[in-house]
Amino acid sequence: MPTPNKAVVLVSGGLDSATVLAIAREAGYELHALSLDYGQRHHFELESAVRVCQAASVASHVVFPLDTRIFCGSALTNDIPVPHQRSDAEIGDGIPVTYVPARNTIFLAVALGLAESIVATDIYIGVNAVDYSGYPDCRPEFISAFETTANLGTKVGVEGTHITVHTPLVSLTKSEIIQRGLQLGVDYGLTRSCYDPDTKGVSCGECDSCRLRLKGFHETGVADPIEYQR
Amino acid sequence: MPTPNKAVVLVSGGLDSATVLAIAREAGYELHALSLDYGQRHHFELESAVRVCQAASVASHVVFPLDTRIFCGSALTNDIPVPHQRSDAEIGDGIPVTYVPARNTIFLAVALGLAESIVATDIYIGVNAVDYSGYPDCRPEFISAFETTANLGTKVGVEGTHITVHTPLVSLTKSEIIQRGLQLGVDYGLTRSCYDPDTKGVSCGECDSCRLRLKGFHETGVADPIEYQR
Repeated sequence: MPTPNKAVVLVSGGLDSATVLAIAREAGYELHALSLDYGQRHHFELESAVRVCQAASVASHVVFPLDTRIFCGSALTNDIPVPHQRSDAEIGDGIPVTYVPARNTIFLAVALGLAESIVATDIYIGVNAVDYSGYPDCRPEFISAFETTANLGTKVGVEGTHITVHTPLVSLTKSEIIQRGLQLGVDYGLTRSCYDPDTKGVSCGECDSCRLRLKGFHETGVADPIEYQR
Repeated sequence: MPTPNKAVVLVSGGLDSATVLAIAREAGYELHALSLDYGQRHHFELESAVRVCQAASVASHVVFPLDTRIFCGSALTNDIPVPHQRSDAEIGDGIPVTYVPARNTIFLAVALGLAESIVATDIYIGVNAVDYSGYPDCRPEFISAFETTANLGTKVGVEGTHITVHTPLVSLTKSEIIQRGLQLGVDYGLTRSCYDPDTKGVSCGECDSCRLRLKGFHETGVADPIEYQR
């Protein structure tokens, strides 16, 4: 049996990246998961990432500490209140305060470093340009530019082996993502998506991320297996 | 007097980045220095960075911790011996073992995050494609691709303000860099370039980086003000 190729998969502990992990697994890759510990206000997200990776039998899982507190503009890492109960029109309209500066650029750069060090040429990231909440670094043109950068800036790329950044969710709706994950046996009960969980890690049900998730399950006609505060 | 524009300048503590800092200062920017603490074997480099930034009267200096020990392939962060006494032909021939995977991609990504958070649209990095030791992420085409990525992946870029990655040293020889720095009053006695200093921080004089530096001073006809072991 040939040795499987390695893929680095960015895993946040959310619904999207759990689905991406299952897709990379089905594609036959040896899975090397990477989670960024970027000073989230809620460590529950990383605990979910660990559970999701264990369930997917990854070959390795690195939790990389990245202190983004120098970037003072974000509600995810500082004390700006997370906006609740935005209308559907507001979600996706403009860039929300939960934006972490250059987040996917930084995450992909670290993934690239890991990929090069373990001789992997495939990186998976769960970006989505449909239900994407307005982050510029979730768009296909951004990913394409990063891939070009990756191939020019690394030993692997320069020596002629193409580095590919896979974004299997990029054009899927949340409902389509959930359907794909359910086909692949993803246990969404292990995942968390909330920007603002309570002290026990229970999701709020009202932040942008919770609402996109609940809408996705609703449209799929399946109950979200996780608990909500309301 | 108008408020000066801000620039994020990557400062390692070496000769090149000290020169870049002086160039950005002369261009009129308010200087925001960023040093990456990436698990170097020698902390002397970061101590030099602090001295260089103080001498340049920067507005801020962030030392960003980046644990690259997950990337096991590099002599700078692990226990692979640093090669000494390579011939001039060997220097610049192939990619050396001192390579940190995806280093400039990661450094620029963090710089971009800082730039966006302080509303700076200019990033300075001291890459050099002439006496460059064979790192693929020092080449102009890499920088250009990163700049494209930066403009697509950030709020600033998307909202129409162009992010520029300045590489004022890219086509200069080491001697030309030194001449430019001396014109601008850089005190190279504050800088360190060695990959393998002794326990007191004295440069070895024999690693690739020391040899390129010494050759540069020799060609400039100026004595290198720092001490060497031999």
